[in-house]
Amino acid sequence: MSIAVDGIEFDEGKRQGISMNVAVVGYGYWGPNLARNFSSLEGVSLRTVCECNPHLLKKAQKAYPLASMTGDFDEILKDGSIDAVCIATPALTHYDLSLRALRAGKHVLVEKPMAMSSAQCDMMAREADKRGLVVMVDHPFAYCGAVRKLAEFSSKGELGNLYYFDSVRINLGIMQSDVNVLWDLAVHDLSILFQLGGERPVSVSASGVSHIENRPIDTVYLTLHYDSSFIAHVHVSWLAPIKIRHTTVAGDCKMAIYNDTESVEKLKIYDSGVDMKSASREDMNKLLVEYRAGDIYVPRLDSSEPLALLTADFYHAVCRSEKPLTGAEDGARVVRILEAADRSIQRNGERIAL
Amino acid sequence: MSIAVDGIEFDEGKRQGISMNVAVVGYGYWGPNLARNFSSLEGVSLRTVCECNPHLLKKAQKAYPLASMTGDFDEILKDGSIDAVCIATPALTHYDLSLRALRAGKHVLVEKPMAMSSAQCDMMAREADKRGLVVMVDHPFAYCGAVRKLAEFSSKGELGNLYYFDSVRINLGIMQSDVNVLWDLAVHDLSILFQLGGERPVSVSASGVSHIENRPIDTVYLTLHYDSSFIAHVHVSWLAPIKIRHTTVAGDCKMAIYNDTESVEKLKIYDSGVDMKSASREDMNKLLVEYRAGDIYVPRLDSSEPLALLTADFYHAVCRSEKPLTGAEDGARVVRILEAADRSIQRNGERIAL
Amino acid sequence: MSIAVDGIEFDEGKRQGISMNVAVVGYGYWGPNLARNFSSLEGVSLRTVCECNPHLLKKAQKAYPLASMTGDFDEILKDGSIDAVCIATPALTHYDLSLRALRAGKHVLVEKPMAMSSAQCDMMAREADKRGLVVMVDHPFAYCGAVRKLAEFSSKGELGNLYYFDSVRINLGIMQSDVNVLWDLAVHDLSILFQLGGERPVSVSASGVSHIENRPIDTVYLTLHYDSSFIAHVHVSWLAPIKIRHTTVAGDCKMAIYNDTESVEKLKIYDSGVDMKSASREDMNKLLVEYRAGDIYVPRLDSSEPLALLTADFYHAVCRSEKPLTGAEDGARVVRILEAADRSIQRNGERIAL
Amino acid sequence: MSIAVDGIEFDEGKRQGISMNVAVVGYGYWGPNLARNFSSLEGVSLRTVCECNPHLLKKAQKAYPLASMTGDFDEILKDGSIDAVCIATPALTHYDLSLRALRAGKHVLVEKPMAMSSAQCDMMAREADKRGLVVMVDHPFAYCGAVRKLAEFSSKGELGNLYYFDSVRINLGIMQSDVNVLWDLAVHDLSILFQLGGERPVSVSASGVSHIENRPIDTVYLTLHYDSSFIAHVHVSWLAPIKIRHTTVAGDCKMAIYNDTESVEKLKIYDSGVDMKSASREDMNKLLVEYRAGDIYVPRLDSSEPLALLTADFYHAVCRSEKPLTGAEDGARVVRILEAADRSIQRNGERIAL
Repeated sequence: MSIAVDGIEFDEGKRQGISMNVAVVGYGYWGPNLARNFSSLEGVSLRTVCECNPHLLKKAQKAYPLASMTGDFDEILKDGSIDAVCIATPALTHYDLSLRALRAGKHVLVEKPMAMSSAQCDMMAREADKRGLVVMVDHPFAYCGAVRKLAEFSSKGELGNLYYFDSVRINLGIMQSDVNVLWDLAVHDLSILFQLGGERPVSVSASGVSHIENRPIDTVYLTLHYDSSFIAHVHVSWLAPIKIRHTTVAGDCKMAIYNDTESVEKLKIYDSGVDMKSASREDMNKLLVEYRAGDIYVPRLDSSEPLALLTADFYHAVCRSEKPLTGAEDGARVVRILEAADRSIQRNGERIAL
Repeated sequence: MSIAVDGIEFDEGKRQGISMNVAVVGYGYWGPNLARNFSSLEGVSLRTVCECNPHLLKKAQKAYPLASMTGDFDEILKDGSIDAVCIATPALTHYDLSLRALRAGKHVLVEKPMAMSSAQCDMMAREADKRGLVVMVDHPFAYCGAVRKLAEFSSKGELGNLYYFDSVRINLGIMQSDVNVLWDLAVHDLSILFQLGGERPVSVSASGVSHIENRPIDTVYLTLHYDSSFIAHVHVSWLAPIKIRHTTVAGDCKMAIYNDTESVEKLKIYDSGVDMKSASREDMNKLLVEYRAGDIYVPRLDSSEPLALLTADFYHAVCRSEKPLTGAEDGARVVRILEAADRSIQRNGERIAL
Repeated sequence: MSIAVDGIEFDEGKRQGISMNVAVVGYGYWGPNLARNFSSLEGVSLRTVCECNPHLLKKAQKAYPLASMTGDFDEILKDGSIDAVCIATPALTHYDLSLRALRAGKHVLVEKPMAMSSAQCDMMAREADKRGLVVMVDHPFAYCGAVRKLAEFSSKGELGNLYYFDSVRINLGIMQSDVNVLWDLAVHDLSILFQLGGERPVSVSASGVSHIENRPIDTVYLTLHYDSSFIAHVHVSWLAPIKIRHTTVAGDCKMAIYNDTESVEKLKIYDSGVDMKSASREDMNKLLVEYRAGDIYVPRLDSSEPLALLTADFYHAVCRSEKPLTGAEDGARVVRILEAADRSIQRNGERIAL
Repeated sequence: MSIAVDGIEFDEGKRQGISMNVAVVGYGYWGPNLARNFSSLEGVSLRTVCECNPHLLKKAQKAYPLASMTGDFDEILKDGSIDAVCIATPALTHYDLSLRALRAGKHVLVEKPMAMSSAQCDMMAREADKRGLVVMVDHPFAYCGAVRKLAEFSSKGELGNLYYFDSVRINLGIMQSDVNVLWDLAVHDLSILFQLGGERPVSVSASGVSHIENRPIDTVYLTLHYDSSFIAHVHVSWLAPIKIRHTTVAGDCKMAIYNDTESVEKLKIYDSGVDMKSASREDMNKLLVEYRAGDIYVPRLDSSEPLALLTADFYHAVCRSEKPLTGAEDGARVVRILEAADRSIQRNGERIAL
């Protein structure tokens, strides 16, 4: 079987006998998903699961009786049979664990956010480059069928010149205790935004509030400003009564809505917009605005699990020594925005230049 | 029949023979709705429609053959039989027409926004007070069943201490040429917010963009800041592919969503939130966050047309010389925010103190 | 302005000075809609409203002060200036009132159902033909944008050979006391079905129940059987907690869903279906079934009020002496099914040949 | 951890050292779900997977490296360490495989439908009773949170006397080649209906059509008739463009809708209905019908995976030698209706007495 992302084909496990041994570090919320996907990927073996919580480690052992279990990260570093390490631990540890893995000669797939500062991200990228290793960030939405299709529409110019990007990602929980909601949720919206390509933001402003005493900020409104009239806005919250995952990308030709909570019609392309017409020959300045609300097109999407494509892309990048779709550059770019947004929140919403 | 808003009963038309003659000024988009509601209100007569576009005036004549038609506002001012004037003209003319009507001794119902500056609003209020006349602003959502019920829940404390107010009001068009999208759409969200009572905002920040050359700003993100951790955010746009009218009011007891595009379940009350528990006796600082996603309650709502209640409230205020629900104070309060928001947009999102 | 239904253009009111005077008989639930549409149709005058309930007549007078009001149907028959009569009275009176109007030389637009038996329908058609008058049935869904578009898709063969028609029309109320739910609601589904053209049903079976003592049947499941494997099913009820208007038309090329309770996306065309493939050369009988769930297309629809098009079509038919879209034949066809369905219910669901 | 279904608590795996070894037979569509749930159930070991397709068997081996794999059902029968057999093979084989397992002294959990005739079901029940073994049918919806809650509401009388049960279960595929759509899908609706308790149906009628040549019937309308005015209707199809899982249970007090495709609000209780009032003292026969559309209540539901509860109930029944919730009686009851429905379809919808 081969999987295509963006025109690239992944011939899983058929790399002339190349196989990859993987260790998954962290078996809390996300680690089990990584373990499951790696364990079903041809050419890949889940060699070790590392987790300090014994209850979780026992669960991992039950699910993967042939893998070895450990609570000691150093064991993984020392194990010469392990080619790649997947870091699914709290965000604050991403930098340290990744760097140690890279220095031990392991390829690294690290959960989002890549690290807690852009300086850390750059350091990780340099370390990987120096050693010819892959460092990849787990931005799963970049591999989601709807986002791939949306990026395709956008890059083909079907939406026209983009007006704005607006994304809402709210739900009740998970209230992280180590990072604020930006670093937990907005990272997804930013990684989706960057998949669309196009202009680079010049500044960031954000407002955020913590409603629960001694807890990180739970609700943020984030705006990215551009040289053109394009604007991007992200609303994230852990304190919403319902789950919303709603991203609008509007252009002067067409507009798209990606609603991830829909089971079937996740992506809709609206042939809607504004047409300008001169009111008359004489008065060219007087333009009439005409609204066009046309047909709607709901494309069939690839329904593969994004993480299946992502882990395959990681494997592929390791085999071919190529850049994955969501490499260090992508991870650093997102972290740079988050850093600036944090600063803007501290300064009452001041615009922070990028 | 009697209509109750907020515990007040309107015995329409039973004011011991008191009847009210109304003139509707402006018969474009909103005027016909005012005319229709006044003409079916017992005790009220639609005496005159004033409109400068002859095509629209002809339509009005067909619908109300017994009313007189004119293109001259002065005729209304001179007509001693007219008790009240409803201004449904472009926003830029609200102040001038209202003031002239008040000075001619007429009660005034003016479409939103009340005027183009808070100074104008204050002047209108003073003029009305001086002459013992009613000046009321047409904020229709204040009379909508869902908003009345939401205000009731909130004022009874059922939501608890409020976390935030978040409102999205977007659609394709109507691109006004005289005012920007704040003055067209955000006025509704602000009037809903103020119906909930509670704390007063201390500053405003906003980002807004115009995507169509030589046209007013079509997309705005507006944030109201408070002394507490309460925060209010309004997103309005004329450039969205679909119509969204979605307002969330979250408190530490319950959370409410008012979705005006739903035909039946417009208001939902979620018994959802966050509970804090001490992790242990010794370590009181270490609080555990627990999410509670409980039952949902969808109250039956009064389905009366908001404008029917609003026009009845105007009539009632005139008869009894009482303040209507959406009086000059309410109108001015909204305009004050809009003014500050415009200034914030010009200053790159700087917080403007109120 | 001209309105196009099915390729025909209605040049309203431009019939070389031809104008039509209309009387609306019955001003209860539906009559006001007919009155409003006729009164705003150029070339047509609403001359008289006839209604025996004085409260309703007063309402009509307030809305149409230039029309004359009466409680006596004979006055309309005698009034030589009235060209056409619109019957919006209880179903049991349709036949008698229509026939009397036709015999008095008036064109007739009669609310659905056309009459209480197909014999009555045929009599009405004969009477109209004999006198060169128009008799039209008010099947409003035939003029609805979604149904017009659906009929167009179907007649162009875009759906392929039709598999089935399935329609659900349920809500809470209106519990009629004179007719059962078939004659109130199923008439719409049948009129939609017949707009699609195609095969004629050969038999009908139905199950129905009355849940409220001494009241007509409130819930019916109706099946139309055909010579081919096509099948049509209609579910109607006055006892459902929510309003559903959901019609599926599935063919071997595409499938369509018409959901009338949606405000925007009323009609969706699914490029979905079943493809058959021979498993192998040798075993042609062993066909593999493959499912195809492809793109979805949501066409922009004419959003004109169906009743505006319907009343214009009536006017047009009268002016040109042509058949309207929903003439006597259409009305009789629907009544014939309802008659057979009633009989099937009485006989425990036995198939009744048509 | 303990799981409660219907007031019974399952203390999983705490049966004083009682453990159960399970074999899963059939690893196609449903088998993997059974294997996964059994393998994560404390006290239970997945000992063997039996599957004749080598590709599927390889998949099973990868997922459960400690279980033994076989293509030979007899091996399971002979293996004395296996306590229970789960049959997830095509429906036509259920009877034979179950009976052989029972005769080999194994407890049996068999996928729905229990067997292809009620005689077969009775035989299976007798065989199990004789040997003191558990035979249970996998009716997963009986264990779903929404159905449990609905059954609870109904049994407490909160809905009042039931008017009707109406269930729609349609989607595109899976076109089975061995059984028709009734035996694949309607089995779920019937098992839900029977969970509500209450009256027993007296006869069945059904219409069904096959639209694909040489394939089983893909679309069926099934009606259950009762001595009272209660009526149950089930619509199932493999040929629908969208997936609908929509069950309405209406009573004279309240009405409930269970929409399984909703992610959160699966069950809604409507305080809606019909109230009868005497029009006047004199005329007691003239009852006025009044509609009541009141509040809606959306209860929080147990979100456990139904199959987790079902497999736990099976384990519990085996440990305690008790009847599970969906025992042989339940399975036979459903099959009896399906048999009668098949006969009714062959006889053109004739009512078949039960």
